[in-house]
Order: sequence, then C-alpha cells, then structure tokens
Amino acid sequence: MPRLWDETVDAHRRAVRAATVEATAELVHEHGLRAVTMSQIAKRAGIGRATLYKYFSDMNSILVAWHEQQVTVHLEQLVSIKDGPGEAGARLCEVVTRYAEITRSSRSPHAFDFPDLHGHEHAVAAQRRLRELLGELIAEAAQSGAVRDDVAPAELAEYCRHALAAAFELPSDDAVHRLVAVVLAGLSASDARS
Amino acid sequence: MPRLWDETVDAHRRAVRAATVEATAELVHEHGLRAVTMSQIAKRAGIGRATLYKYFSDMNSILVAWHEQQVTVHLEQLVSIKDGPGEAGARLCEVVTRYAEITRSSRSPHAFDFPDLHGHEHAVAAQRRLRELLGELIAEAAQSGAVRDDVAPAELAEYCRHALAAAFELPSDDAVHRLVAVVLAGLSASDARS
Repeated sequence: MPRLWDETVDAHRRAVRAATVEATAELVHEHGLRAVTMSQIAKRAGIGRATLYKYFSDMNSILVAWHEQQVTVHLEQLVSIKDGPGEAGARLCEVVTRYAEITRSSRSPHAFDFPDLHGHEHAVAAQRRLRELLGELIAEAAQSGAVRDDVAPAELAEYCRHALAAAFELPSDDAVHRLVAVVLAGLSASDARS
Repeated sequence: MPRLWDETVDAHRRAVRAATVEATAELVHEHGLRAVTMSQIAKRAGIGRATLYKYFSDMNSILVAWHEQQVTVHLEQLVSIKDGPGEAGARLCEVVTRYAEITRSSRSPHAFDFPDLHGHEHAVAAQRRLRELLGELIAEAAQSGAVRDDVAPAELAEYCRHALAAAFELPSDDAVHRLVAVVLAGLSASDARS
C-alpha cells in the first residue's frame, strides 16, 4: 500500500516536471529565453505558481531539467544505434554522424542566452557515457578491421569527441557531413599502415 | 625630445611589467598560485608595492598579462614554423605537433587554480590567429597534394583545432604523438579519394 502510494506520487511528480519543461521549451521558442517568466510557465503548464515553485526554485533549475532531458534523449539515440544491427564500422559512422548533427543543432537561435551547463553534473556524466559508448564501438570496429588498431580505442574516442565539437559552429548540414568524413578518415584502418 | 622621453617611459613600463610577470611565474611555480601575494611579487620583482599597484590592480590582472605573454610566445613559435623552410606538408605536421604539445603542457599542476582566461580578448584573438595560420598552411599543403582538397582549408583548420584540444587530457608525450598521427590521417590526401 505505501509502495503504491509512493509510485503514484512519483508519477505525479514526473508529470508536473515534464509539463513544466515542455511549457518552458514552447515559450522559449516563441518569445526567446529572456522574455519568459515563471508565471507564464505555470500558466502554460496548467499548474499554480505555488506548485511550480515547489518543483523549481527559478528559471535556471528548469533550464537544467530541460537540458538534462535533451541530453538523455540524445544519449538514448546513440546507444540504440550502437546496440542496433549492422557492421560495427557502419554503426560507428552512424553514431558519429548523429552526434555531429546533435552538436550542430544545439546551437539554437536562443543558445547564447542560455546558462553554460557543460560543467553541470548531468552533462559531465553524459560526456563520460559518450566516451565509453564511442570507445566500445571503436574497439568493436577495430576488431572487425574497420578502424585502426595502432591507437587505443579510448584515445580514439577522445579524438572523435573533440573533433566533432567543431560541428557546433558549422554553417550547414553539408559541412557537418564533410567533418564526419574527415574524422572517420582519421580513424580508418588504412592509415594505420602508413 | 618629448619623443625620446615617451620611448624611455615606454621601455620602463615594459621592463616593470616583464619583471612582475617573471616574478609571479617563479613564485607560483615555487609555492602554488593560492599562496602568492602581491607583496611577495613586488619584493621578488624588486619594485615597491605602490609601483606594482600602479601597473596591476590585483593578482588576476597579472595572470592575464602572464597568459597573454605565453600565448604570444606560442603563436610566434607556430608562425615561425609555418613561414620556415621545407615542404608545406612537413611544416603542417610540425605545426600540428607543436600545438598539441603546447596544449598538453598548458595543463600544469597549478592550472586548476587559474581563472579561466579562454574568453579573454587576447585569448579569443589568439584562437582566431591560430585558425588563420592553420587554414593558410592547409591551403598550401592541399595545393602541393599533401592534404585532401575536397574540404575547404578553413573547415579542415577547425577540425584540427578541435581535435587537438584532446591533447589537454592526454597522459603522455607518446599519446600526443598518436593523436597527431590520427589528426593528420584525417587531413591526408589519400582519403579524399575514397
């Protein structure tokens, strides 16, 4: 009985948090970050201001929750590609491409108003998980001969992660795909021989 | 006559600033950043405290001057390699290696106590200069056939700059050289054909 009650309370909490984040995302896209207030968010989410403040003390804590949710979704996408069907080399190419696209899309028109959340606990954990994911997939691809085996997978994963950060400032999707080609050329097994 | 006086004053200012930065660098290496005071710096530099405060209002402004000086020296090293003798491909390899070494060495034991100066005006200008320098050298190397010509030099320069940032966390000089090999493989002309 207390268990069931806990679960109900938990589900309610998650629903309020999700509605708040969704309302905030909508309002920021419509009006820009600086124009959005806690009152507007409460109204759009269909909750009272007092309730909103029980969950989030300020805009910044909502933005952290929003960012955390986006990072979680993006990581899940990458994991599902990694654990999906196909040759390791092809899955690596897909993961690298998707991560470059995510990096580029994170530069929204409102991005410069946002607080820098890269040092935040969830963002650091996500980057660690990304390093592991890339390292595992690179190790698999190296075993199948698609990736060079003269450099440790963990080092190649760090090379990838940093090189793909260049996608943030790229002007077009085409430029993102050129970057991906260059990064993959660095990983490719044929160069290990030179 | 006033001209000569101006030059004398200028030379004196530069000498005081240089002595202050040098004294600070020595003291930080000896005792760590947090243990160093303005009084110690004045004493080591051989100037009065009042004089020191005429040039630098606080520790932070000395650290900015120190960083600016280091960045200038590093850029000069890269420019002299770029403008030096030898094939463009070989000079590019040398510039990339030197930049990776500089990046790794910037992680000193005291680095974590330092204020983050990457957003500072001189650091932003230095990164812009680095982008230009890499882009020019890559364009030259592409013309000589050493670097792929299917991606614009400016995009390849950004790939380099970001990928080489991985050197910051690398554990050894050997790992830095492996990173350089991987980055150069991404640039190499042979991959443009695939």
